[in-house]
Amino acid sequence: MTEIRIGLIGTGGMGKAHATAFHNVPLVFGPEPGRPILEIVADVEAAALEQWAGAFGFARWTTDWRAVVADPAVAVVDITTPNHLHAEMAIAAAQAGKHLYCEKPLATTSADAARIVAAVEQAGVISLVGFNYLRNPAQAFARQLIAAGELGEITLFRGVFDQDFLADPEVPFSWRLDRGLAGTGALGDLGSHTIAFAQVLVGEITEVCGLNATRIHDRVVPAGGSGYAAKAASGAARRAVENEDIAECLVRFANGAVGTIGTSRIGVGRKLALGYEIQGTRGSLVYTQERMNELQLYRHSDPERERGYKTIYIGPEHPGYKAFFGLAGIGLGYNDQKIIEAHALTTAVALGRLVQPDVRFAYQVNKVIDAVDLACQERRWVRVSEFDTAVDQPQ
Amino acid sequence: MTEIRIGLIGTGGMGKAHATAFHNVPLVFGPEPGRPILEIVADVEAAALEQWAGAFGFARWTTDWRAVVADPAVAVVDITTPNHLHAEMAIAAAQAGKHLYCEKPLATTSADAARIVAAVEQAGVISLVGFNYLRNPAQAFARQLIAAGELGEITLFRGVFDQDFLADPEVPFSWRLDRGLAGTGALGDLGSHTIAFAQVLVGEITEVCGLNATRIHDRVVPAGGSGYAAKAASGAARRAVENEDIAECLVRFANGAVGTIGTSRIGVGRKLALGYEIQGTRGSLVYTQERMNELQLYRHSDPERERGYKTIYIGPEHPGYKAFFGLAGIGLGYNDQKIIEAHALTTAVALGRLVQPDVRFAYQVNKVIDAVDLACQERRWVRVSEFDTAVDQPQ
Amino acid sequence: MTEIRIGLIGTGGMGKAHATAFHNVPLVFGPEPGRPILEIVADVEAAALEQWAGAFGFARWTTDWRAVVADPAVAVVDITTPNHLHAEMAIAAAQAGKHLYCEKPLATTSADAARIVAAVEQAGVISLVGFNYLRNPAQAFARQLIAAGELGEITLFRGVFDQDFLADPEVPFSWRLDRGLAGTGALGDLGSHTIAFAQVLVGEITEVCGLNATRIHDRVVPAGGSGYAAKAASGAARRAVENEDIAECLVRFANGAVGTIGTSRIGVGRKLALGYEIQGTRGSLVYTQERMNELQLYRHSDPERERGYKTIYIGPEHPGYKAFFGLAGIGLGYNDQKIIEAHALTTAVALGRLVQPDVRFAYQVNKVIDAVDLACQERRWVRVSEFDTAVDQPQ
Amino acid sequence: MTEIRIGLIGTGGMGKAHATAFHNVPLVFGPEPGRPILEIVADVEAAALEQWAGAFGFARWTTDWRAVVADPAVAVVDITTPNHLHAEMAIAAAQAGKHLYCEKPLATTSADAARIVAAVEQAGVISLVGFNYLRNPAQAFARQLIAAGELGEITLFRGVFDQDFLADPEVPFSWRLDRGLAGTGALGDLGSHTIAFAQVLVGEITEVCGLNATRIHDRVVPAGGSGYAAKAASGAARRAVENEDIAECLVRFANGAVGTIGTSRIGVGRKLALGYEIQGTRGSLVYTQERMNELQLYRHSDPERERGYKTIYIGPEHPGYKAFFGLAGIGLGYNDQKIIEAHALTTAVALGRLVQPDVRFAYQVNKVIDAVDLACQERRWVRVSEFDTAVDQPQ
Repeated sequence: MTEIRIGLIGTGGMGKAHATAFHNVPLVFGPEPGRPILEIVADVEAAALEQWAGAFGFARWTTDWRAVVADPAVAVVDITTPNHLHAEMAIAAAQAGKHLYCEKPLATTSADAARIVAAVEQAGVISLVGFNYLRNPAQAFARQLIAAGELGEITLFRGVFDQDFLADPEVPFSWRLDRGLAGTGALGDLGSHTIAFAQVLVGEITEVCGLNATRIHDRVVPAGGSGYAAKAASGAARRAVENEDIAECLVRFANGAVGTIGTSRIGVGRKLALGYEIQGTRGSLVYTQERMNELQLYRHSDPERERGYKTIYIGPEHPGYKAFFGLAGIGLGYNDQKIIEAHALTTAVALGRLVQPDVRFAYQVNKVIDAVDLACQERRWVRVSEFDTAVDQPQ
Repeated sequence: MTEIRIGLIGTGGMGKAHATAFHNVPLVFGPEPGRPILEIVADVEAAALEQWAGAFGFARWTTDWRAVVADPAVAVVDITTPNHLHAEMAIAAAQAGKHLYCEKPLATTSADAARIVAAVEQAGVISLVGFNYLRNPAQAFARQLIAAGELGEITLFRGVFDQDFLADPEVPFSWRLDRGLAGTGALGDLGSHTIAFAQVLVGEITEVCGLNATRIHDRVVPAGGSGYAAKAASGAARRAVENEDIAECLVRFANGAVGTIGTSRIGVGRKLALGYEIQGTRGSLVYTQERMNELQLYRHSDPERERGYKTIYIGPEHPGYKAFFGLAGIGLGYNDQKIIEAHALTTAVALGRLVQPDVRFAYQVNKVIDAVDLACQERRWVRVSEFDTAVDQPQ
Repeated sequence: MTEIRIGLIGTGGMGKAHATAFHNVPLVFGPEPGRPILEIVADVEAAALEQWAGAFGFARWTTDWRAVVADPAVAVVDITTPNHLHAEMAIAAAQAGKHLYCEKPLATTSADAARIVAAVEQAGVISLVGFNYLRNPAQAFARQLIAAGELGEITLFRGVFDQDFLADPEVPFSWRLDRGLAGTGALGDLGSHTIAFAQVLVGEITEVCGLNATRIHDRVVPAGGSGYAAKAASGAARRAVENEDIAECLVRFANGAVGTIGTSRIGVGRKLALGYEIQGTRGSLVYTQERMNELQLYRHSDPERERGYKTIYIGPEHPGYKAFFGLAGIGLGYNDQKIIEAHALTTAVALGRLVQPDVRFAYQVNKVIDAVDLACQERRWVRVSEFDTAVDQPQ
Repeated sequence: MTEIRIGLIGTGGMGKAHATAFHNVPLVFGPEPGRPILEIVADVEAAALEQWAGAFGFARWTTDWRAVVADPAVAVVDITTPNHLHAEMAIAAAQAGKHLYCEKPLATTSADAARIVAAVEQAGVISLVGFNYLRNPAQAFARQLIAAGELGEITLFRGVFDQDFLADPEVPFSWRLDRGLAGTGALGDLGSHTIAFAQVLVGEITEVCGLNATRIHDRVVPAGGSGYAAKAASGAARRAVENEDIAECLVRFANGAVGTIGTSRIGVGRKLALGYEIQGTRGSLVYTQERMNELQLYRHSDPERERGYKTIYIGPEHPGYKAFFGLAGIGLGYNDQKIIEAHALTTAVALGRLVQPDVRFAYQVNKVIDAVDLACQERRWVRVSEFDTAVDQPQ
C-alpha cells in the first residue's frame, strides 16, 4: 500500500469536500493500492487556515500555494480554488512533476485549458478533473450499456442542468457572475457537467449553436462572504451581472447523434436538475441527479406488451457501489461520489496509470463551452474545432 | 338550442375521432347552445363509405368533397384529410360561407396556411383547428396561471414531442414520410403540437435556429394500407424517406423568454411524450401527455421549507372537466379532449363568436415550422417574420 | 348483428355513464355481434325523466321500474339505482327472464346478493356487475401475467382505495352515510373495488380481520341534492354518520397469499387512489388508478444489474385497448372503461355466453365485505365461509 | 470541546458503519461540543481484529467485550453485535456507568429490552438506539409538521418495509432466520424501523392484530460467512427457517389514529421500501426510503384548484441537513444518516442531556413487535400493554 501525499489548495466548499473524501477512502474501500495522506493545505488567510488544517487533519499548512507545489513530500496537488486560478496552479504543479487533481471546469477558457494539457502531458503526470457526477455508479453502468451497443446507435441526447440558487433577484453578486473570474455563467458552472455527461456517454461534440440570456441584470454587492447564502447590507451598491443566467444549445456529435444541452441557474423549482435523456436505436436511458440512485432504462427488444422504462436502483452490480453496500437501493449521496473519485485518483497514482476524466477530457469540455459561447455571441453554428490548439495536433 | 350540421371530409382515424366526438357532445355536456348533427360525409371509396356513414350516423354520404362544401344544409365543413389537401378544401369551404373545423397542421406550408387565413377572414366564418391536446383542462389551467402572472415572467420553455412509432426500420413507407404530402416530418406532425403549446402558454415565437436528422434513410413500400400498423410484403421495393425523423430547435419569444423545442418520431421508449417545462420568475410548470391528468406546479412563493413541485390532478376547478366528473382525478382520456374540442366548436358556431385556436393561430404555427425547416437547411437563425405574408399586414 | 335492447333503471351519475357507454360501443368497436339499443328508462320523477330520456336517446320512459322489467322488448335490465334497491329489481328482472347489468356493490348484504345469484342462476340469464375498473386493459394484462405464472406464486397483496370527497366535515349527509341505504361505508363503496381486484388477480379470500373508524361523527342534513357537491343550508340539522370512514383489513387467500386491503373516504390528498402492489416469487406488479394508463412490472428473472420496476403504458397488445387506438400510451379515461364494459355485456348477450364479473363474483365480494364488517364489530378473525348460503352448496 | 471516547463492540457491517460515522462527525459538523475518539474495539477473532482496528483508527482492541465495558477511558459503549447479545452487553455497560449506543432492535424480546431500560435509567446514563432512518432530515421535518398540527389530527398511518434480499430460495440460512438469535423475522429486522416511524410521527401504538407467513420453509446451510452475499456449498444440508418472511398487522394508536404496518424480506422488486403514508384531517405525507431525499406533502388548505402532493427535496431548512450542504436537493445517502446519528450521540454526551430515540423508545418498539408476534400466534387482537413490565409503572 502506497501512501499518496496530498497537497490541497483551497479550503472552500470543495476543499472541504475533497479533504472529507480522502478521509473516507480507506474507511469505505479498505486496504487498497493507494492510501491518501493529507500532507499540506494552502489558502490565503492564515488565521482561519490553521484551525481548518487541524479540523481536517492536515499535517501542515501554508499561505503560499507555491510552497505546496514545491513541497517534495507532496505527490498530488489538489486544486479547489476559483476557476480563474486553476491554470497557473495546475501548470506549476505539472512542471514540478506533481500529479494533478483539479476541480471543474478546468479553466475559464479552452486556451488556458490547453496550456494545462500541454504541461501535464509534457510532464507525464497523472491528472483527474473533478466531474464528480460522473462517479455515480449509475453513470458507469450507463457507459457500459452504451459501449456494449445495448442501446444501438445513439440518435438523440438531451441534457440539462438547472438549479435555482440565483433565481431570487435579492441574492447578491458573487464571483460566479464575474466574467473575469468565472468565465461564462450557467454554461461553465453547471453546463460543464452536462457536456461531460454527453462526452462520456455519447462521444465527441463537433459543432454547436446556442442562445443565452441574462434575466437578472444586476445584483447587490455583498458586505462579505460569497457563498450561496451570502446576504447584502441594505442600501448596498449594485453591480452588473457579466455572464448568462440561461444557455441553451444544439449539438452535433461525431457519431451522427444530435441533441440539446440546456442550463439555467435561475431555473425556479430545480434543485439539482442535472439530467439527460439518451435515445438509441435499440434502447434509451433517462437520468436525473435529483434521484441519483436511479437510472431509467428502456429496451426496444423487450416483448412488445412489456416495453417500458425500468427504474433501476444502483447496487453492487454497478461499478463503484459495492464498496459501500452489499444490497441495491441503499442510498448513496453526493459526498459518496467524491469518495469514489478520490479513490480513483489514489488508485491511479499508486499504480502509475492514467485515469479519466483527465485534463484532456476537461479541455474538450472547455472547447465546447467556448464554442457555445461564441455561437451565442455571433449567432451562428460554430465547429468545436475552431478552438483547436497545438495540443490537438497529432504527435 | 341550435342544430349545427356537420359536413365531414375524410373517414380515417381522425374522421372517426371527430364523428365520435360529435356524438358525445350532447351526452357529456347536456343541453347546450349548439347541437351537432352529422349531416353528410365524403371520402373517395364509395363502397366502404356507405357502411361508414351508417356506422357513424351520418344522414348522407358522397364521394365528391365539393358536394359537402356546396351543401346548403351544412354549417360546418370538417376536414380530416391528409395535410396537403387541407388548403384547397378549407378555402373552398370558407368561400362557400361554411364555418371550418380542420385537423392540424393547417397546411403543409405557411403560404398555404396564409391563403386559408385570407379566405376565412374574408368570409367572416368561424374556424377551429384541431390541436386537441390544448383542450386538456390541464392546459386551460396552465394558461390561467400564466396569464394571471402566477409564474411571474416566463424565462424558459422546453418542449418536446417524441413518439417511437417509426423507430423500427421495418415499419413501411407512408404518406407521413413524403415531402409533397406531409411537408416536414416529425416537426410538422408532432412538433406542431409543441409549438402550439409554446404559443398558447408563452406567446409568439420570433426567431429560431434548428437542426434535424433522418436516421432511417429508406423504408419498404407497403402493399396496402398506410396506418401505423401497415406491413409490407417481403421483397417489396424501398423508397427514400423525404423528411426528418428528428428536429431540435432553439426559440426566442417576443416577451424575452427563450427555449428549445424538440421532436423525434423514432424516440425509442416514448409513447406520447408531448410535454413541456415552463420556468418563470415566480413559478414553474411541468407537463407530459403520457400523464395527461396531471400538472406539476412549483411556486417560488411557498415557504422555503415547503417548496416543491406539486402534482395536481385535473378536476372540476379546471376548465372543461366539470362536464365529465364532479370529483378530481377521475381520468380523462384522449377522446375526451376531442369531445371538449367539438363542444367548443358547436358552441362558438351556435353563438356566432370566434374561438381559439383558429386558422390564424395555426398559420402562426405553420410559419414557425417553415422557419425551423429553413434554419435547418441554411444552418442559420431565421426570424419567423421572414415568412410573413399579406395576412400579417395591419388592416 | 343482434340488437340488444336495454331497459335502464336509474338516471343518476351512473345511469348517465351507462347510457353514454352504450352510445359509444358501436362507435368505438364498429360492427360487432351485439348492438345496444336504448329502449326504455325508468326513474321516479316524471318531469325530469322525459327530458333525460330524450337527451340520452331512449325511445320510451316510465316512472314504474316494474314496467321495464316486464317490457317484452327489453333484453337487458340495467340497474344503476342506490345499492339497497338492487336486490328487489335484480331478482324481478331475472325472474322475468331478463339479462342483468347491475352497478356495484351488487347488494348491501351478502344475503341479498345470494338471493340475486339464486334468481339469476335459476333463470339462466347472463349477468354483469359494473366493477368498471376491472375493464382497464391494464388489469386484463395483469391477469394474463399472473395466470400464466409470470409472477410465480403470489406471496403478498396490498390493495387500497382512498378518496377524499368526504374529508371536509362540511360536506353534508348523504345516502352513502346511511347504514340502511348503503350498508357499510368506505368498505362497500370504495373497498369493494379493491376486493374485486384481489379476487380477480390473486383469487379467493378465505378469512379476514379488520378495524374501522368513523372520524366525522355527524354531518349537516342538506336542503336538497345528494351528489358529491351538495351543499347544506346554514343552521340545518345534523345527522349521525352510520358507517365507517376508514376500514383496514388483513386477508388470507385460498392459495396461501396474504395481504391487506385498506380504504378511506376521508383520505386527504387522494383523488382516485385505487391501487395495489402484488408480490410474487418471480415478479411483482404495482398499479394506481390515478395513473390508469400505466402498469408497473418487475421481473426477478431480469439480469441482476437491470432489475427494476418497468412503467408499461397500455397499448394495442393489452386486451380492450386496440378498439380505441393503434399506438400505446394514447390515454384512455374512466369513461372508456365503461365502454369496454358495455361492449362485454352486449357481446355476451348477443353470443349467449356468460361473462365476468357476474353476480356470483359480486356475491363473493359482498361476502368479504360482510366478513370484514363482522370482524371489525367482533374484533376477531372471520372466515368468509361464515357467510355461506345455499348458493354456495355444490349442486 | 469534550472528547467522547468510544468503545465499540462488533466489527460487522454496522460496526464499520458506526466507526465511519464517528470519523465523519467532525469533518461534517466542524467544531462541536463533543468530539468522538475511537478508543477501543472488541470482537471475537483476534487475527482479523487487529487489522480492523488499525484500518478504522482505533487506539486499542480486545477480544473480551467486558474489557470494553470496564475500560475507564471509555465513555460510550457502542453495541453492534447480533441482536440476542445486546441485553447482556447493554446492561453491563449501564451498570459500569457507560453511556450506551446500541443498534436496533434493542433486544430480541421486550422483556430483555425492559431489563436494559431498567439498567440504563437506574444508572442515569444517556442512551441512543440506532434507528438510523429516523435521522433523515425528512423525518425531522415530518415530525415538525405533525407536531405543529399542520396535518390536523392523524387519521391513518400505512407503513411498510420491504426488501427482497431473501427472495431467492437459494440464499442460504443465516442468523436472521434463527428464532433464538434474531427473534422474529422480517417483523423485528425490518418492521422495527416502520414501528419506529409510527411511534415518532403518529404516537403510541396501543393494540395490534396481525398475520405472518413463512414462504421459504428451509434454506441451505452455508459453508461460511453469513452476510447478504453468503453462498452455500452444493450438497449442503438444509435447515428450517424459524421466523416469518412476511408480517402484516393492524394497529390502533392512543390518539385515535388507525393503520397498518407491513413487511416482507422476500418482497420481490423492493430494495429499501421503507415508507409510509400518513393522512391527517388537514394534510398528508408520503415517504419512501428509496427516494430518501424527498418528502411528499399535501395540504388540504391549498386553494382547491392547486391541491396536490408536493415533492419537497430536503435542504438546509430541514433539521440535520445544513451541516452537509448549503443548497437543497444535493443528495444525502444512507451513511449520512449515520453521521447525523453519531453527532446526536456525541453532542448529547458532551452536554449531558438525554437524546431520542433512547432505550425506552426502543423498548416500546420491542413491545409492539412482541404484541404483533403474539397476535399472529393466537389469532387475536393484542393490547401492547399486555407486555408491560415494571419499567412501565409510574415512579
